[in-house]
Amino acid sequence: MADADYDALGRKAREAARATARATATQKDAALRAAARALRAATPEILKVNAREVEAAQAAGEAPAFLDRLRLDALRVETMARALEDVAALPDPVGEVLSRWTRPNGLAFERVTVPIGVIAVIYESRPNVTVDAAAIAVKAGNAVILRGGAECFETSQALARLLRRALAGVGLPEDAVQFVETADRAAVGAILGGLGGAVDLVIPRGGRSLVARVRAEARAPTLGHYDGLCHVYLDQGADLQKAVAVTLNSKMRRTGVCGAAETLLIDRARLSELWPPVAAALRAAGCELRGDAAVRALDPAVSSASEEDWHTEYLAPVLSVAAVDGVGGAIAHIARYGAGHTESIVTENAAAARRFLDEVDSAIVLHNASTQFADGGEFGFGAEIGIATGRLHARGPVGVRELVSYKTVVRGNGQIRP
Amino acid sequence: MADADYDALGRKAREAARATARATATQKDAALRAAARALRAATPEILKVNAREVEAAQAAGEAPAFLDRLRLDALRVETMARALEDVAALPDPVGEVLSRWTRPNGLAFERVTVPIGVIAVIYESRPNVTVDAAAIAVKAGNAVILRGGAECFETSQALARLLRRALAGVGLPEDAVQFVETADRAAVGAILGGLGGAVDLVIPRGGRSLVARVRAEARAPTLGHYDGLCHVYLDQGADLQKAVAVTLNSKMRRTGVCGAAETLLIDRARLSELWPPVAAALRAAGCELRGDAAVRALDPAVSSASEEDWHTEYLAPVLSVAAVDGVGGAIAHIARYGAGHTESIVTENAAAARRFLDEVDSAIVLHNASTQFADGGEFGFGAEIGIATGRLHARGPVGVRELVSYKTVVRGNGQIRP
Repeated sequence: MADADYDALGRKAREAARATARATATQKDAALRAAARALRAATPEILKVNAREVEAAQAAGEAPAFLDRLRLDALRVETMARALEDVAALPDPVGEVLSRWTRPNGLAFERVTVPIGVIAVIYESRPNVTVDAAAIAVKAGNAVILRGGAECFETSQALARLLRRALAGVGLPEDAVQFVETADRAAVGAILGGLGGAVDLVIPRGGRSLVARVRAEARAPTLGHYDGLCHVYLDQGADLQKAVAVTLNSKMRRTGVCGAAETLLIDRARLSELWPPVAAALRAAGCELRGDAAVRALDPAVSSASEEDWHTEYLAPVLSVAAVDGVGGAIAHIARYGAGHTESIVTENAAAARRFLDEVDSAIVLHNASTQFADGGEFGFGAEIGIATGRLHARGPVGVRELVSYKTVVRGNGQIRP
Repeated sequence: MADADYDALGRKAREAARATARATATQKDAALRAAARALRAATPEILKVNAREVEAAQAAGEAPAFLDRLRLDALRVETMARALEDVAALPDPVGEVLSRWTRPNGLAFERVTVPIGVIAVIYESRPNVTVDAAAIAVKAGNAVILRGGAECFETSQALARLLRRALAGVGLPEDAVQFVETADRAAVGAILGGLGGAVDLVIPRGGRSLVARVRAEARAPTLGHYDGLCHVYLDQGADLQKAVAVTLNSKMRRTGVCGAAETLLIDRARLSELWPPVAAALRAAGCELRGDAAVRALDPAVSSASEEDWHTEYLAPVLSVAAVDGVGGAIAHIARYGAGHTESIVTENAAAARRFLDEVDSAIVLHNASTQFADGGEFGFGAEIGIATGRLHARGPVGVRELVSYKTVVRGNGQIRP
């Protein structure tokens, strides 16, 4: 694509955003429900297109995990259709009065939610991001520019066309959803540059190399998560059964997600009691264990964790384990090595729990629950477009409520400022 | 300063931010009140240091407006002390539960405000920014790195030292307020680069060249306002007296502030009636008028506005004036030329007001009130650190409530994810 084409893409999105910002909840929800119906009806065609792409990726020697992310089946298509309906069923996030106040001079203030505007989403091999991202962006009154990975280009394009038709069907501009129809890698650079000021927000959704590129190049504001180095801490006051269940689930339910635990911290005072059952459960599930000196003294079968391990997000069935001195030691370890994503404490001691929840500075902090609940669906958000680990605007799962901004409406009767 | 010194600056700020994040409201407020007392007591020394800097700037041939921004007097020092006390009197913005919900699996969610962390403020010739920025940053549990302009370097440094002593006096780390003690312009580059990841937010406060530099170089997230091209729209339903008063105040109360009106839009249907009294009031106050063809046809003494005028933030006693076709015409003009800062409609027609307030996409929209109310103090925020015109995190005046983020606290009793 030429520079002028990117500028046109941005202009069309801005224009469409003006219309979606004024759309009624009824109109937006009708578009999402129509898209769900159209998606179900188009299942055979979508699967045919997707099968071709999966075959090509297989022929290119892509790994099984990659092929699994890329592959659609009837159930996955139905899940996408449900996501559209779930988002339609959410309350309209636009026009909500966040606060109201009046000043002594009689001016009446209201802080009201408004759409952000134009949101660009850059993603890799999961075609469902096309549908989830478009659904939550449009529900929040925004226009979205989708840049899908080359591997799922045709599947994503087919999904985007279907969404565009659904928008047009209810009288909304189809350019509220634009799919960047070029495999040219320069497209990512153009989007990160902000398409001449037309992009209000960039959301990257993908692996390390995409994230590194976004970090290095983005001129537009971004929301996303950089690392998901999550910790589980088993406190002196931990219930043994909960300790085993929460650790096992946090690490092994799915090892490739950003909410998977990567490091286990155990209070030194209970180490010898807690470790054997926890280790047995992890080993039975096929998890490799790397421990510090205290853990290895107790269990020589554990291999030695290096300094590097405390910094590593394995995204694999590997867990680093350290003994710490109580909740203070856990908080200090997390402050040093954590990524500010999600951490959990297992304890029956209310004071220890309170201290951990207060002092651990992460987007999500849990008490007696698995780190794998770090997910918009589990939060009740209907759909999400990732987890934000930055500190501005949104922190944690990004759903429809996180894709709005606000403005201040001030009503007077002729007030002038002295 | 060497690179290592900048890294140390960032590390010290991060360390201090951990302590201020846990400080109690009582402790933070005591520090701010102590700083107010110390500032009043130090008035003679502060004024002496400032007088030297004003003299040097005068000798260097700086303009009167510049010297006025730089100059302190007893009243201005007292205003700074009051700002410290006003901020101390605000409710603690940290630890507020923004929302609470429970999921069917029994997990209890709370979204709770937390400090942002390390905030860098880059400003120019107003020494009071030192005090205002430090006060609201610390109140919100953050650490602040202050980079004042070379012209007010010594005044700002003296103010910062006083603030640091007040922090230490209540047991808070004095590095919660750090003033960059070098006139080296490379400091701004280091801060915009994020000081090795230590800076969570950069707030520029200054003129066009600073803003342009921030726009071009910032790698850390920023909050600020780029332009303040504010509009007043006199609707067909305008009350004549309010039209005159609001226009005059919006333009002429102070012409150098970002909330000053730069363009006046008048409904064509009332132009011949509204223009003469509005023009008379503006002329009497010394305002130069530049109009479109319709305005000039009515009043040939008005000079001709060029396309450039509609894009221009004069920050001077100059006003561009255009006739528009009703509220729709005003909204279209503002969408095309506005900066998304502040716009006001003058009308007694509720439907026109509603449409303007809904459809004008600016941080602040007013009905029958002066655009010069675009100010944190006028909003009741105690103190502000500028007006944000971006669309993420904060929009409009940035006060203590805008300098917090949030985290999600999840309480369970052993839940694991299926």
